[in-house]
Amino acid sequence: MKLSDAQLRSFHDDGFLILPQLFSIEEVELIRAQLPTLFAERCPQNFREKDSDVVRTAMGLHLRNDVFARLVRHPRLLEPALQILKEDVYIQQVKVNAKEAFSGEVWQWHYDFATHHGEDGVPKPLALNLHIFLDEVNEFNGPLVFIRGSHKHGPAPTSLDTVTTSYPLWTVDDETVQALVADGGLVAAKGPPGTALIFADCLVHGSSINMSPWPRRIYSLIVNPLSNALTRHRRPDHQHHRDVTPVTPLSDDCLFAGVAA
Amino acid sequence: MKLSDAQLRSFHDDGFLILPQLFSIEEVELIRAQLPTLFAERCPQNFREKDSDVVRTAMGLHLRNDVFARLVRHPRLLEPALQILKEDVYIQQVKVNAKEAFSGEVWQWHYDFATHHGEDGVPKPLALNLHIFLDEVNEFNGPLVFIRGSHKHGPAPTSLDTVTTSYPLWTVDDETVQALVADGGLVAAKGPPGTALIFADCLVHGSSINMSPWPRRIYSLIVNPLSNALTRHRRPDHQHHRDVTPVTPLSDDCLFAGVAA
Repeated sequence: MKLSDAQLRSFHDDGFLILPQLFSIEEVELIRAQLPTLFAERCPQNFREKDSDVVRTAMGLHLRNDVFARLVRHPRLLEPALQILKEDVYIQQVKVNAKEAFSGEVWQWHYDFATHHGEDGVPKPLALNLHIFLDEVNEFNGPLVFIRGSHKHGPAPTSLDTVTTSYPLWTVDDETVQALVADGGLVAAKGPPGTALIFADCLVHGSSINMSPWPRRIYSLIVNPLSNALTRHRRPDHQHHRDVTPVTPLSDDCLFAGVAA
Repeated sequence: MKLSDAQLRSFHDDGFLILPQLFSIEEVELIRAQLPTLFAERCPQNFREKDSDVVRTAMGLHLRNDVFARLVRHPRLLEPALQILKEDVYIQQVKVNAKEAFSGEVWQWHYDFATHHGEDGVPKPLALNLHIFLDEVNEFNGPLVFIRGSHKHGPAPTSLDTVTTSYPLWTVDDETVQALVADGGLVAAKGPPGTALIFADCLVHGSSINMSPWPRRIYSLIVNPLSNALTRHRRPDHQHHRDVTPVTPLSDDCLFAGVAA
Protein backbone atom coordinates (compact mmCIF):
# COMPACT_ATOMS: atom_id res chain seq x y z
CA MET A 1 0.00 0.00 0.00
CA LYS A 2 1.66 3.18 -1.23
CA LEU A 3 0.13 6.60 -1.84
CA SER A 4 0.73 8.16 -5.25
CA ASP A 5 2.46 11.52 -5.62
CA ALA A 6 -0.93 13.06 -6.46
CA GLN A 7 -2.44 11.61 -3.27
CA LEU A 8 0.46 12.93 -1.18
CA ARG A 9 0.09 16.38 -2.75
CA SER A 10 -3.63 16.33 -2.14
CA PHE A 11 -3.07 15.38 1.53
CA HIS A 12 -0.56 18.18 2.05
CA ASP A 13 -2.71 20.78 0.25
CA ASP A 14 -6.13 19.89 1.70
CA GLY A 15 -5.09 18.42 5.05
CA PHE A 16 -7.06 15.23 4.37
CA LEU A 17 -7.21 12.36 1.91
CA ILE A 18 -10.18 10.09 1.19
CA LEU A 19 -9.35 6.52 0.12
CA PRO A 20 -12.50 4.93 -1.37
CA GLN A 21 -13.11 1.19 -0.92
CA LEU A 22 -9.89 0.65 1.03
CA PHE A 23 -11.50 -2.11 3.12
CA SER A 24 -13.85 -4.83 1.87
CA ILE A 25 -17.38 -5.31 3.15
CA GLU A 26 -16.26 -8.61 4.75
CA GLU A 27 -13.57 -6.76 6.69
CA VAL A 28 -16.02 -4.06 7.74
CA GLU A 29 -18.54 -6.68 8.86
CA LEU A 30 -15.90 -8.42 10.97
CA ILE A 31 -15.04 -5.10 12.66
CA ARG A 32 -18.72 -4.22 13.19
CA ALA A 33 -19.38 -7.65 14.72
CA GLN A 34 -17.00 -6.78 17.58
CA LEU A 35 -18.92 -3.66 18.63
CA PRO A 36 -22.02 -4.89 20.52
CA THR A 37 -19.92 -6.68 23.16
CA LEU A 38 -17.45 -3.79 23.46
CA PHE A 39 -20.20 -1.13 23.66
CA ALA A 40 -22.11 -3.10 26.30
CA GLU A 41 -19.19 -2.82 28.73
CA ARG A 42 -19.49 -0.29 31.57
CA CYS A 43 -15.96 1.11 31.70
CA PRO A 44 -14.19 4.48 31.55
CA GLN A 45 -13.14 3.70 27.96
CA ASN A 46 -16.77 3.95 26.84
CA PHE A 47 -18.04 7.55 26.67
CA ARG A 48 -21.81 7.95 26.51
CA GLU A 49 -23.87 10.76 24.89
CA LYS A 50 -24.66 13.77 27.03
CA ASP A 51 -28.42 13.33 26.71
CA SER A 52 -28.71 9.55 26.53
CA ASP A 53 -27.07 6.28 27.59
CA VAL A 54 -25.93 5.55 24.01
CA VAL A 55 -22.17 5.00 23.56
CA ARG A 56 -20.65 7.93 21.65
CA THR A 57 -17.01 6.84 21.70
CA ALA A 58 -15.38 3.57 22.72
CA MET A 59 -11.61 3.78 23.27
CA GLY A 60 -8.62 1.53 23.95
CA LEU A 61 -10.12 -1.08 21.62
CA HIS A 62 -6.85 -2.81 20.63
CA LEU A 63 -6.30 -3.66 24.30
CA ARG A 64 -9.84 -5.00 24.65
CA ASN A 65 -10.36 -7.06 21.47
CA ASP A 66 -8.25 -9.26 19.14
CA VAL A 67 -9.63 -7.91 15.86
CA PHE A 68 -8.79 -4.35 16.87
CA ALA A 69 -5.34 -5.54 18.10
CA ARG A 70 -4.68 -6.57 14.48
CA LEU A 71 -6.50 -3.61 12.92
CA VAL A 72 -4.13 -1.08 14.53
CA ARG A 73 -1.30 -2.78 12.60
CA HIS A 74 -3.15 -3.04 9.28
CA PRO A 75 -0.79 -2.19 6.40
CA ARG A 76 -3.49 -0.43 4.37
CA LEU A 77 -3.65 2.33 7.01
CA LEU A 78 -0.25 2.10 8.65
CA GLU A 79 1.90 2.13 5.49
CA PRO A 80 0.39 5.38 4.12
CA ALA A 81 0.90 6.94 7.57
CA LEU A 82 4.56 5.87 7.67
CA GLN A 83 4.97 7.11 4.08
CA ILE A 84 3.63 10.55 5.04
CA LEU A 85 5.54 10.84 8.32
CA LYS A 86 8.79 9.17 7.18
CA GLU A 87 9.50 7.92 10.72
CA ASP A 88 8.38 5.32 13.25
CA VAL A 89 5.06 5.87 14.98
CA TYR A 90 3.35 4.65 18.15
CA ILE A 91 -0.33 4.06 18.75
CA GLN A 92 -1.74 7.14 20.41
CA GLN A 93 -5.50 6.41 20.46
CA VAL A 94 -7.81 3.67 19.13
CA LYS A 95 -11.55 4.21 19.08
CA VAL A 96 -14.89 3.88 17.35
CA ASN A 97 -16.96 7.06 17.21
CA ALA A 98 -20.57 5.90 17.04
CA LYS A 99 -22.89 8.67 16.00
CA GLU A 100 -26.00 6.56 16.39
CA ALA A 101 -29.24 6.96 14.44
CA PHE A 102 -31.59 9.65 15.84
CA SER A 103 -29.35 10.37 18.84
CA GLY A 104 -25.85 11.27 17.61
CA GLU A 105 -24.76 14.66 18.90
CA VAL A 106 -22.67 17.49 17.50
CA TRP A 107 -18.88 17.76 17.53
CA GLN A 108 -18.08 21.47 17.51
CA TRP A 109 -15.35 22.92 15.28
CA HIS A 110 -11.99 21.74 16.58
CA TYR A 111 -8.66 20.23 15.57
CA ASP A 112 -7.01 17.33 17.30
CA PHE A 113 -3.65 18.99 17.99
CA ALA A 114 -5.26 21.47 20.40
CA THR A 115 -6.00 18.52 22.68
CA HIS A 116 -2.80 16.61 21.94
CA HIS A 117 -0.71 19.68 22.76
CA GLY A 118 -2.81 21.19 25.54
CA GLU A 119 -3.61 17.98 27.42
CA ASP A 120 -0.73 15.65 26.57
CA GLY A 121 2.13 18.05 25.83
CA VAL A 122 2.69 16.72 22.31
CA PRO A 123 5.26 19.14 20.81
CA LYS A 124 4.25 19.32 17.13
CA PRO A 125 1.10 18.79 15.00
CA LEU A 126 2.41 15.63 13.32
CA ALA A 127 -0.05 12.95 14.49
CA LEU A 128 -2.31 11.46 11.82
CA ASN A 129 -5.92 10.44 12.31
CA LEU A 130 -6.75 7.33 10.23
CA HIS A 131 -10.42 6.46 9.76
CA ILE A 132 -12.44 3.58 8.37
CA PHE A 133 -16.18 4.11 7.76
CA LEU A 134 -18.07 1.21 9.35
CA ASP A 135 -21.41 2.47 7.96
CA GLU A 136 -22.27 4.48 4.90
CA VAL A 137 -21.54 8.10 5.74
CA ASN A 138 -23.80 10.53 3.88
CA GLU A 139 -25.04 14.10 4.15
CA PHE A 140 -27.77 13.05 6.58
CA ASN A 141 -26.00 11.09 9.32
CA GLY A 142 -23.38 13.56 10.55
CA PRO A 143 -20.30 13.23 8.32
CA LEU A 144 -17.02 14.81 9.39
CA VAL A 145 -16.88 18.24 7.78
CA PHE A 146 -13.40 19.60 7.06
CA ILE A 147 -12.35 23.19 6.50
CA ARG A 148 -10.15 22.50 3.50
CA GLY A 149 -6.54 23.64 3.95
CA SER A 150 -7.13 24.96 7.48
CA HIS A 151 -4.10 22.97 8.74
CA LYS A 152 -1.81 25.27 6.74
CA HIS A 153 -2.64 28.27 8.93
CA GLY A 154 -1.09 26.53 11.95
CA PRO A 155 -2.82 25.98 15.30
CA ALA A 156 -5.90 28.22 15.54
CA PRO A 157 -6.88 29.83 18.88
CA THR A 158 -9.12 27.56 20.95
CA SER A 159 -11.15 27.45 24.13
CA LEU A 160 -12.25 24.46 26.21
CA ASP A 161 -15.88 23.43 25.68
CA THR A 162 -17.15 21.27 28.52
CA VAL A 163 -20.83 22.08 27.95
CA THR A 164 -21.90 21.04 24.46
CA THR A 165 -20.85 17.42 24.49
CA SER A 166 -20.04 14.62 26.90
CA TYR A 167 -16.38 14.86 25.89
CA PRO A 168 -14.38 18.04 26.76
CA LEU A 169 -13.13 19.58 23.53
CA TRP A 170 -10.79 22.45 22.67
CA THR A 171 -12.94 24.28 20.12
CA VAL A 172 -12.24 27.00 17.56
CA ASP A 173 -14.22 30.25 17.81
CA ASP A 174 -16.77 31.44 15.23
CA GLU A 175 -14.67 34.30 13.82
CA THR A 176 -11.72 31.99 13.12
CA VAL A 177 -14.00 29.38 11.52
CA GLN A 178 -15.58 32.10 9.37
CA ALA A 179 -12.17 33.24 8.08
CA LEU A 180 -10.85 29.71 7.48
CA VAL A 181 -14.04 28.69 5.62
CA ALA A 182 -13.89 31.84 3.49
CA ASP A 183 -10.40 30.74 2.49
CA GLY A 184 -10.79 26.98 1.97
CA GLY A 185 -14.49 26.09 2.00
CA LEU A 186 -16.17 23.08 3.61
CA VAL A 187 -15.93 19.46 2.47
CA ALA A 188 -17.94 16.60 3.98
CA ALA A 189 -16.19 13.21 4.03
CA LYS A 190 -18.77 10.80 2.64
CA GLY A 191 -18.72 7.30 1.22
CA PRO A 192 -19.83 3.68 1.59
CA PRO A 193 -18.60 1.39 4.39
CA GLY A 194 -14.91 0.54 3.90
CA THR A 195 -13.97 4.07 2.80
CA ALA A 196 -10.85 5.27 4.59
CA LEU A 197 -9.65 8.72 5.48
CA ILE A 198 -6.39 10.29 6.67
CA PHE A 199 -6.31 13.77 8.14
CA ALA A 200 -3.83 16.16 9.68
CA ASP A 201 -3.54 17.15 13.33
CA CYS A 202 -4.21 20.88 12.70
CA LEU A 203 -7.09 20.39 10.25
CA VAL A 204 -10.20 22.11 11.63
CA HIS A 205 -13.28 19.89 11.47
CA GLY A 206 -16.62 19.27 13.12
CA SER A 207 -19.69 17.15 12.62
CA SER A 208 -23.38 17.78 12.97
CA ILE A 209 -26.01 15.78 14.82
CA ASN A 210 -27.39 12.55 13.38
CA MET A 211 -31.18 12.83 13.16
CA SER A 212 -31.37 10.22 10.39
CA PRO A 213 -32.43 6.61 10.94
CA TRP A 214 -28.93 5.49 9.88
CA PRO A 215 -26.05 4.91 12.34
CA ARG A 216 -22.70 6.49 11.49
CA ARG A 217 -19.93 4.46 13.12
CA ILE A 218 -16.32 5.32 12.28
CA TYR A 219 -13.13 3.58 13.39
CA SER A 220 -10.36 6.03 14.27
CA LEU A 221 -6.69 5.27 14.87
CA ILE A 222 -4.35 8.10 15.81
CA VAL A 223 -0.62 7.47 15.29
CA ASN A 224 2.15 9.82 16.31
CA PRO A 225 5.91 9.83 15.56
CA LEU A 226 8.10 8.54 18.40
CA SER A 227 10.10 11.77 18.23
CA ASN A 228 6.90 13.69 18.97
CA ALA A 229 5.63 11.60 21.89
CA LEU A 230 3.50 12.93 24.73
CA THR A 231 5.32 14.77 27.53
CA ARG A 232 2.45 14.98 30.05
CA HIS A 233 0.35 12.15 31.52
CA ARG A 234 -2.71 14.11 32.59
CA ARG A 235 -5.28 12.05 30.65
CA PRO A 236 -5.97 8.34 31.15
CA ASP A 237 -4.00 5.83 29.07
CA HIS A 238 -6.93 5.09 26.71
CA GLN A 239 -7.02 8.75 25.66
CA HIS A 240 -3.30 8.79 24.88
CA HIS A 241 -1.44 5.53 25.28
CA ARG A 242 1.86 5.57 27.21
CA ASP A 243 3.30 2.64 25.26
CA VAL A 244 5.47 4.34 22.65
CA THR A 245 6.80 1.13 21.07
CA PRO A 246 7.09 1.55 17.28
CA VAL A 247 4.18 -0.21 15.57
CA THR A 248 4.88 -2.39 12.53
CA PRO A 249 2.45 -3.46 9.79
CA LEU A 250 1.05 -7.01 9.63
CA SER A 251 0.11 -8.76 6.38
CA ASP A 252 -2.71 -7.50 4.17
CA ASP A 253 -5.05 -10.31 5.25
CA CYS A 254 -4.27 -9.88 8.94
CA LEU A 255 -7.82 -9.19 10.03
CA PHE A 256 -8.92 -12.72 9.26
CA ALA A 257 -5.91 -14.36 10.94
CA GLY A 258 -7.17 -16.93 13.41
CA VAL A 259 -10.77 -16.57 12.20
CA ALA A 260 -12.34 -19.90 11.15
CA ALA A 261 -13.34 -19.92 7.45
CA MET B 1 -47.00 30.98 -13.77
CA LYS B 2 -48.34 27.50 -14.38
CA LEU B 3 -46.90 24.16 -13.30
CA SER B 4 -46.39 21.55 -16.02
CA ASP B 5 -48.08 18.15 -15.85
CA ALA B 6 -44.70 16.63 -14.96
CA GLN B 7 -44.30 19.11 -12.09
CA LEU B 8 -47.80 18.37 -10.80
CA ARG B 9 -47.13 14.63 -10.95
CA SER B 10 -43.82 15.10 -9.16
CA PHE B 11 -45.54 17.14 -6.42
CA HIS B 12 -48.23 14.51 -5.89
CA ASP B 13 -45.74 11.60 -5.93
CA ASP B 14 -42.99 13.10 -3.78
CA GLY B 15 -45.02 15.52 -1.64
CA PHE B 16 -42.74 18.41 -2.60
CA LEU B 17 -41.61 20.34 -5.64
CA ILE B 18 -38.44 22.43 -6.01
CA LEU B 19 -38.66 25.42 -8.38
CA PRO B 20 -35.10 26.60 -9.17
CA GLN B 21 -34.47 30.33 -9.76
CA LEU B 22 -38.11 31.29 -9.28
CA PHE B 23 -37.14 34.65 -7.76
CA SER B 24 -34.36 36.95 -8.95
CA ILE B 25 -31.43 38.02 -6.80
CA GLU B 26 -32.84 41.58 -6.83
CA GLU B 27 -36.15 40.31 -5.42
CA VAL B 28 -34.34 38.24 -2.79
CA GLU B 29 -32.20 41.21 -1.79
CA LEU B 30 -35.30 43.38 -1.38
CA ILE B 31 -36.86 40.75 0.89
CA ARG B 32 -33.65 40.31 2.88
CA ALA B 33 -33.34 44.07 3.35
CA GLN B 34 -36.59 44.03 5.36
CA LEU B 35 -35.32 41.55 7.94
CA PRO B 36 -32.99 43.49 10.27
CA THR B 37 -35.76 45.90 11.32
CA LEU B 38 -38.34 43.12 11.68
CA PHE B 39 -35.98 40.82 13.62
CA ALA B 40 -34.97 43.64 15.98
CA GLU B 41 -38.56 44.00 17.22
CA ARG B 42 -39.37 42.56 20.64
CA CYS B 43 -42.83 41.06 20.03
CA PRO B 44 -44.62 37.73 20.36
CA GLN B 45 -44.36 37.25 16.58
CA ASN B 46 -40.57 36.86 16.92
CA PHE B 47 -39.54 33.49 18.35
CA ARG B 48 -35.97 33.27 19.62
CA GLU B 49 -33.64 30.22 19.79
CA LYS B 50 -33.81 28.12 22.94
CA ASP B 51 -30.13 28.64 23.75
CA SER B 52 -29.58 32.19 22.49
CA ASP B 53 -31.29 35.49 21.81
CA VAL B 54 -31.11 34.99 18.04
CA VAL B 55 -34.46 35.13 16.18
CA ARG B 56 -35.40 31.67 14.94
CA THR B 57 -38.78 32.50 13.40
CA ALA B 58 -40.47 35.84 12.68
CA MET B 59 -44.21 35.58 11.97
CA GLY B 60 -47.11 37.75 10.81
CA LEU B 61 -44.75 39.56 8.43
CA HIS B 62 -47.41 40.68 5.88
CA LEU B 63 -49.11 42.63 8.67
CA ARG B 64 -45.83 44.23 9.75
CA ASN B 65 -44.15 45.17 6.45
CA ASP B 66 -45.18 46.38 2.96
CA VAL B 67 -42.87 44.13 0.96
CA PHE B 68 -44.24 41.06 2.74
CA ALA B 69 -47.79 42.39 2.26
CA ARG B 70 -47.14 42.14 -1.49
CA LEU B 71 -45.08 38.94 -1.32
CA VAL B 72 -48.00 36.94 0.13
CA ARG B 73 -49.90 37.76 -3.09
CA HIS B 74 -47.02 37.04 -5.46
CA PRO B 75 -48.30 35.18 -8.55
CA ARG B 76 -45.19 33.01 -8.85
CA LEU B 77 -46.08 31.26 -5.59
CA LEU B 78 -49.83 31.81 -5.38
CA GLU B 79 -50.79 30.64 -8.87
CA PRO B 80 -49.09 27.22 -8.52
CA ALA B 81 -50.82 26.83 -5.14
CA LEU B 82 -54.23 27.66 -6.65
CA GLN B 83 -53.49 25.31 -9.54
CA ILE B 84 -52.73 22.44 -7.13
CA LEU B 85 -55.66 23.11 -4.79
CA LYS B 86 -58.23 24.13 -7.44
CA GLU B 87 -60.03 26.41 -4.98
CA ASP B 88 -59.67 29.75 -3.20
CA VAL B 89 -57.16 29.99 -0.36
CA TYR B 90 -56.57 32.25 2.62
CA ILE B 91 -53.27 33.21 4.22
CA GLN B 92 -52.70 30.93 7.17
CA GLN B 93 -49.16 31.85 8.25
CA VAL B 94 -46.37 34.14 6.97
CA LYS B 95 -42.87 33.83 8.38
CA VAL B 96 -39.13 33.77 7.89
CA ASN B 97 -37.31 30.84 9.48
CA ALA B 98 -33.82 32.10 10.18
CA LYS B 99 -31.44 29.27 10.94
CA GLU B 100 -28.53 31.57 11.65
CA ALA B 101 -24.86 30.75 11.16
CA PHE B 102 -23.28 28.78 14.07
CA SER B 103 -26.45 28.94 16.19
CA GLY B 104 -29.36 27.51 14.19
CA GLU B 105 -31.03 24.66 16.06
CA VAL B 106 -32.67 21.41 15.04
CA TRP B 107 -36.26 20.97 13.85
CA GLN B 108 -37.20 17.41 14.77
CA TRP B 109 -39.09 15.13 12.35
CA HIS B 110 -42.63 16.48 11.96
CA TYR B 111 -45.32 17.38 9.46
CA ASP B 112 -47.29 20.60 9.48
CA PHE B 113 -50.78 19.06 9.50
CA ALA B 114 -50.23 17.58 12.96
CA THR B 115 -50.12 21.16 14.28
CA HIS B 116 -52.77 22.54 11.91
CA HIS B 117 -55.18 19.79 12.93
CA GLY B 118 -54.25 19.37 16.58
CA GLU B 119 -53.94 23.05 17.47
CA ASP B 120 -56.24 24.81 15.00
CA GLY B 121 -58.80 22.13 14.16
CA VAL B 122 -58.06 22.23 10.44
CA PRO B 123 -60.10 19.33 9.00
CA LYS B 124 -57.93 18.03 6.15
CA PRO B 125 -54.22 18.00 5.17
CA LEU B 126 -54.69 20.39 2.23
CA ALA B 127 -52.62 23.42 3.24
CA LEU B 128 -49.51 24.11 1.16
CA ASN B 129 -46.22 25.44 2.49
CA LEU B 130 -44.56 27.76 -0.06
CA HIS B 131 -40.90 28.63 0.48
CA ILE B 132 -38.37 31.02 -0.98
CA PHE B 133 -34.68 30.53 -0.09
CA LEU B 134 -33.27 33.89 1.02
CA ASP B 135 -29.75 32.45 1.33
CA GLU B 136 -28.02 29.60 -0.42
CA VAL B 137 -29.21 26.41 1.23
CA ASN B 138 -26.58 23.66 1.14
CA GLU B 139 -25.72 20.43 2.93
CA PHE B 140 -23.92 22.37 5.67
CA ASN B 141 -26.41 25.01 6.88
CA GLY B 142 -29.42 22.92 7.87
CA PRO B 143 -31.54 22.34 4.75
CA LEU B 144 -35.08 21.01 5.08
CA VAL B 145 -34.86 17.23 4.72
CA PHE B 146 -37.96 15.52 3.34
CA ILE B 147 -38.96 11.89 3.64
CA ARG B 148 -39.97 11.46 0.03
CA GLY B 149 -43.56 10.30 -0.42
CA SER B 150 -44.29 10.23 3.32
CA HIS B 151 -47.45 12.34 2.76
CA LYS B 152 -49.06 9.39 0.96
CA HIS B 153 -49.19 7.32 4.14
CA GLY B 154 -51.58 9.85 5.74
CA PRO B 155 -51.05 11.55 9.08
CA ALA B 156 -48.37 9.66 11.07
CA PRO B 157 -48.67 9.28 14.86
CA THR B 158 -47.15 12.23 16.72
CA SER B 159 -46.30 13.47 20.18
CA LEU B 160 -45.79 17.02 21.43
CA ASP B 161 -42.14 18.03 21.86
CA THR B 162 -41.77 21.07 24.11
CA VAL B 163 -38.18 20.32 25.10
CA THR B 164 -35.93 20.24 22.06
CA THR B 165 -36.71 23.63 20.55
CA SER B 166 -38.14 26.99 21.49
CA TYR B 167 -41.25 26.23 19.43
CA PRO B 168 -43.58 23.40 20.55
CA LEU B 169 -43.78 20.83 17.78
CA TRP B 170 -45.86 17.71 17.17
CA THR B 171 -43.08 15.28 16.24
CA VAL B 172 -43.04 11.84 14.62
CA ASP B 173 -41.44 8.97 16.56
CA ASP B 174 -38.25 7.17 15.52
CA GLU B 175 -39.90 3.88 14.49
CA THR B 176 -42.29 5.69 12.13
CA VAL B 177 -39.47 7.77 10.64
CA GLN B 178 -37.42 4.60 10.16
CA ALA B 179 -40.24 2.89 8.23
CA LEU B 180 -41.07 5.96 6.12
CA VAL B 181 -37.41 6.52 5.21
CA ALA B 182 -37.00 2.83 4.30
CA ASP B 183 -39.88 3.35 1.88
CA GLY B 184 -39.10 6.75 0.35
CA GLY B 185 -35.59 7.81 1.34
CA LEU B 186 -34.38 11.28 2.36
CA VAL B 187 -34.03 14.32 0.10
CA ALA B 188 -32.47 17.62 1.18
CA ALA B 189 -33.94 20.74 -0.45
CA LYS B 190 -30.90 22.72 -1.59
CA GLY B 191 -30.26 25.55 -3.98
CA PRO B 192 -29.14 29.16 -4.44
CA PRO B 193 -31.11 32.16 -3.12
CA GLY B 194 -34.35 32.58 -5.07
CA THR B 195 -35.07 28.85 -5.22
CA ALA B 196 -38.70 28.11 -4.33
CA LEU B 197 -40.30 25.07 -2.83
CA ILE B 198 -43.86 23.79 -2.37
CA PHE B 199 -44.64 20.97 0.02
CA ALA B 200 -47.63 19.06 1.30
CA ASP B 201 -49.20 19.27 4.76
CA CYS B 202 -48.56 15.60 5.63
CA LEU B 203 -45.01 15.44 4.27
CA VAL B 204 -42.66 14.44 7.10
CA HIS B 205 -39.58 16.66 7.28
CA GLY B 206 -36.97 17.97 9.68
CA SER B 207 -33.79 19.98 9.59
CA SER B 208 -30.48 19.71 11.36
CA ILE B 209 -28.52 22.34 13.24
CA ASN B 210 -26.55 25.01 11.39
CA MET B 211 -22.94 24.90 12.58
CA SER B 212 -21.67 26.49 9.35
CA PRO B 213 -20.64 30.15 9.03
CA TRP B 214 -23.52 30.68 6.55
CA PRO B 215 -27.02 31.84 7.56
CA ARG B 216 -29.96 29.84 6.19
CA ARG B 217 -33.00 32.14 6.04
CA ILE B 218 -36.15 30.85 4.35
CA TYR B 219 -39.43 32.69 3.68
CA SER B 220 -42.48 30.49 4.31
CA LEU B 221 -46.08 31.20 3.35
CA ILE B 222 -48.76 28.68 4.29
CA VAL B 223 -52.04 28.90 2.37
CA ASN B 224 -55.12 26.83 3.09
CA PRO B 225 -58.40 26.37 1.14
CA LEU B 226 -61.35 28.38 2.50
CA SER B 227 -63.36 25.16 2.72
CA ASN B 228 -60.71 23.77 5.06
CA ALA B 229 -60.40 26.76 7.41
CA LEU B 230 -59.41 26.53 11.07
CA THR B 231 -62.19 25.60 13.53
CA ARG B 232 -60.35 26.38 16.77
CA HIS B 233 -58.72 29.65 17.87
CA ARG B 234 -56.32 28.32 20.47
CA ARG B 235 -53.13 29.78 18.98
CA PRO B 236 -52.43 33.50 18.46
CA ASP B 237 -53.43 35.09 15.15
CA HIS B 238 -49.86 35.20 13.81
CA GLN B 239 -49.61 31.41 14.11
CA HIS B 240 -52.84 30.89 12.17
CA HIS B 241 -54.53 34.00 10.84
CA ARG B 242 -58.30 34.39 11.44
CA ASP B 243 -58.81 36.45 8.28
CA VAL B 244 -60.07 33.87 5.78
CA THR B 245 -60.59 36.32 2.91
CA PRO B 246 -59.60 34.70 -0.41
CA VAL B 247 -56.20 35.97 -1.50
CA THR B 248 -55.70 37.01 -5.14
CA PRO B 249 -52.43 37.29 -7.08
CA LEU B 250 -50.86 40.67 -7.90
CA SER B 251 -48.76 41.32 -11.00
CA ASP B 252 -45.45 39.57 -11.59
CA ASP B 253 -43.44 42.71 -10.75
CA CYS B 254 -45.45 43.46 -7.61
CA LEU B 255 -42.51 43.35 -5.21
CA PHE B 256 -41.04 46.52 -6.67
CA ALA B 257 -44.34 48.43 -6.76
CA GLY B 258 -43.85 51.72 -4.97
CA VAL B 259 -40.09 51.22 -4.71
CA ALA B 260 -38.08 54.12 -6.15
CA ALA B 261 -35.85 53.04 -9.04
